[in-house]
Order: sequence, then C-alpha cells, then structure tokens
Amino acid sequence: MNVTVLGLGSMGTALAGAFLDAGHTATVWNRSAGKDEALVARGAERAATAADAVGASPLVVVCLSDDDAVHHLLGPLTDELRGRTLVNLTSGTPEQARESAAWAASHGIGYLDGAIMSTPPGIGSSAIMLLYSGSSEAFAEHREVLACLGDPVDLGDDAGVASLYDTALLGMMWATLAGWLQGVALTGADGVDARTFTPVALRWTAAVNTFMSTYAPQIDAGVYPGDDATLAVHLGALEHLLHASAARGLDARLPQLLKAPFEAAVAAGHGADSYARLIEGVRAPHPA
Amino acid sequence: MNVTVLGLGSMGTALAGAFLDAGHTATVWNRSAGKDEALVARGAERAATAADAVGASPLVVVCLSDDDAVHHLLGPLTDELRGRTLVNLTSGTPEQARESAAWAASHGIGYLDGAIMSTPPGIGSSAIMLLYSGSSEAFAEHREVLACLGDPVDLGDDAGVASLYDTALLGMMWATLAGWLQGVALTGADGVDARTFTPVALRWTAAVNTFMSTYAPQIDAGVYPGDDATLAVHLGALEHLLHASAARGLDARLPQLLKAPFEAAVAAGHGADSYARLIEGVRAPHPA
Repeated sequence: MNVTVLGLGSMGTALAGAFLDAGHTATVWNRSAGKDEALVARGAERAATAADAVGASPLVVVCLSDDDAVHHLLGPLTDELRGRTLVNLTSGTPEQARESAAWAASHGIGYLDGAIMSTPPGIGSSAIMLLYSGSSEAFAEHREVLACLGDPVDLGDDAGVASLYDTALLGMMWATLAGWLQGVALTGADGVDARTFTPVALRWTAAVNTFMSTYAPQIDAGVYPGDDATLAVHLGALEHLLHASAARGLDARLPQLLKAPFEAAVAAGHGADSYARLIEGVRAPHPA
Repeated sequence: MNVTVLGLGSMGTALAGAFLDAGHTATVWNRSAGKDEALVARGAERAATAADAVGASPLVVVCLSDDDAVHHLLGPLTDELRGRTLVNLTSGTPEQARESAAWAASHGIGYLDGAIMSTPPGIGSSAIMLLYSGSSEAFAEHREVLACLGDPVDLGDDAGVASLYDTALLGMMWATLAGWLQGVALTGADGVDARTFTPVALRWTAAVNTFMSTYAPQIDAGVYPGDDATLAVHLGALEHLLHASAARGLDARLPQLLKAPFEAAVAAGHGADSYARLIEGVRAPHPA
C-alpha cells in the first residue's frame, strides 16, 4: 500500500521510515527542501508538491508543527483530499481536532485525529500507543497499516478525544515524574543514589496501578467506600512526607499541594471515604 | 519456627495470619483483650504478657500505632529482647528508626526496621514489597521467614532508610494518583468514563517508567542531555494541560504547580536539557 506523509520533522521522518520498514511504499513531502533525502535513499518517493503527494495515496498522514500549519497546507487541497483518508498526527487541542473533523466531513474527506504517545525513536514499536479518534470507518480500513507505527488504540468517533487523552496522559506523566523526583531528592538527601531508589520505585508503580483500577469504578458510581486506606489515614501519612521534605531543606510545594485536597475532604466530613472521593474537588474547585 | 507478633490491629493480625498460613507457629499479644481470638482459633499461641510473648520466639515482630507506643511497650523489656531479633513494622520516621536501632544495639538486640508497602489484605502475597533496613545479619538470618509476609527488599544497614523509602514511595503514589485524577476529570468532562480512560492510563505508566529509568543515571551524574524531549518542548505541552483544565472549569492548581519548575528552568537557560535537570530545583528550592 502507498502511504503519503506530509511534514518531515523528526517525527514525520520516523513515521515515514516505519511505513517503509513495514514494506509499504511511501510518498513524502516537506515544505522546506532536503528533509527527504535519507528517506528517498531508503526508497521513499519524493513528491514535488503537497498536491502531488496527496494525490499519490488513499491514506495521507500529516504531522506538522501545529494546527495552523495544517490548515494553511491542506485548506487549498480539499479537491485532492476528497475520497481519501487524512490522519492528522499534529499535536493540538480537542477543539482544533473537532474543527478539523467538521471541515473534513464537509469536503468528503475521511478524518482521524491521532496522538503519538512516544518520542520519534519509539515509532515502529508495538509497545508504544498511538491514540486515534474520529471516523470509525477510516480506522477500520487503515488500522492494519497504522499498526506499523505503534499499537493503534481506537478512542471512538469524537475526533477531539485523542488529543484530550494525550493531554491527560502527559499530565499524569508530569505528576508521576514530579513525585518520583521528590522521592529521589528525599532518599538522595540521606545518601541513596537515584539508580538505587528507582528500581524500587518502578516496582511500586504496579501497586499504584491497582489503586487506579480500584478507584475508577468508584468514580463512575460516585460512591467511595473507604474499605482499605481512608482519606484520614492518607492525611496522617502525608504529614510524614511534608516533614521529611522540610527537614532535608527540599522544595515542599508538591507535598503541600498534594495534602490540600485530603485536608479539605476530611474537614468536610469525608475522612472515612476512599481516595476516589477527591475527584469531586477536582471537578468543583474552591477558589484559589 | 516460632514468631512473636506484638500488636493485633488489622495489620498485625494480617502479619500473624501470614506466618500461620506459611506453617510457622505464632505467639501473639495485644494490649487490649479480644483481638487475638480469630488467630488463636487458627492455632496461634496467646501470651499472657508482652514479656512472655517476647520470650517465646527468636524473632519478634512489632506493629503498633506509632513509635511512642513501641517505646512504651518495649522500653521495659530489654532483658527479654537481648539476643533476639526485633523487626519493627510500625510506621514512623527515619529519625525514629535510627533512634530505635541505636537503642536496640545498646541492649544487644538485633534490629530491623521495616515498611509494609501494602494494605492488610495484600499481606502474604509475593507481589507486595516489605522494605527492610538495619542489621544485615538479622536480615540474612530471618529473610526466609519474613518472605511469607511479602517480598522482602533489603535496603542496607541504615535503619532509617526503609521508612524514608516508604515516605518517598507514598509521595510518588499521591502524585501519580493526583495526575490520574486530573486526567479522569479532563476526559470525564468530555464524556469519557473513568473506567474507559483508566486502562489506557495504566498502559501509559509503562512508558513513564522508562523515562524514570532514563533519568535516574542522569541525576546521579548531574548531566542532563535533552536527547529526546527537552524542557522547552515539555513546557509547550504543559500549556495544553492548563488550558484544557481551565476550559473545563476544573481545578488547575496541579497543572500550575507542575508547570512552574519547567518555566524556571527554561528561564534559567536550561530549555534544551532533559527533564532530569528539574531535580536541582527540588534540592535547592526558591523561596515560596
């Protein structure tokens, strides 16, 4: 199958390379010259114009710097795109994805919005996820070829959901890494190397994962039974984290922020509930 | 082998039960009466006094409400404890553990401080970790019997390290869960159930784990090469998280806090470095 890739930054180059590695042919195009040479040496077809590139394949993958660049490039190419599938792997917001999906639908273009949960070196591994939302027909038709980029995860027909998950998952990543960094600093203050602490931290993440699995259905049900660890018990343990951070001269802003919703929930009489109760504070924040 | 368990709250009861399940005999004692009945029905020996309980076994496990309770109970029993191993699984601070180790050493008592990385229902599973630090001889001698409580992890001869890891790992847990909750709230605002989002979030944690493995040696070396995702790239993506949270009326304090150290590092000229650079801000915080 021939696949077109528009945009040959480090990510677009990795995407085109993965299509080639999987035995597909690839037509590539980039606004500035010279980015395609290594790919052409590996067998890619160089298109003279974006319109030629679009015309070469039933599946057009676009990965540019931002949403504006996508609209600037593809806005004039609706005739060429009609009847083809456009997979937009450019980072953007859910609102931008939904606008692009509406634009594509109005021009008879199949549209999938995607989020790549990896840096370029990971592309091509089935261990990484690419999240897709939008046209279920387009996903079904192209799932197999998209699978050579990484495991394709179908998030349904709201085109905005893939980038919303992207944002949510990156937020989890930053939070987890910040908690790990606090732990590295804490144990490091008492002479423990990051390389010594981290393998134990990685094992611990398996336990943390089971908590998320336990709490997700509680959140959906709006019922938070404190069968194991109650908010009151958590709050007591959080004092240790604050004290240990302060005693070592470390930045204690993260522990303070983590503690605040436990305090608020306990003060509101929910001390015997599970952690999942805290979703209500995230949804209905108190004024800062 | 006979093991003594002092303190029969829900955790102490689970510990004694795991020893029994593994075919050991257990002598149990609790300050208030009646907590031992189920264990005695399963074959545990009831001791009339704490001194009797200590005298019954070479290995004495204590799990009380706090450090004060441990000292109040065991302070008068140094003669009975001499020549035995005391494993203190009571939650406390590194400083308390180090004081207990010094006290034990001065009385000829082998001492291990431990942290149980599980709630009581998990006790007995090799999937959970129990962290130990203190006497390496005591750990070597009793490792096998302690393994029936959960996987025993040896953290070396500084008795304070097990509770320091405990605090650091719980901090990671709270941070991860807070990030997950933000993601649940974000996707939930657009109609995604927590049970739908969470399996994708759990898969994503495997990728996050690889980042920690990458960054740990960078931290130990104090060298932060931004080979894949730079701090400047992260900062751009963090804007999406803030915007998406605010646009949905969610509490944005966590995204704001997460963003601050990226901004500070980029402003200080480290935008091309990796995430691991942020350890320096945790260690040397700016005034709040």
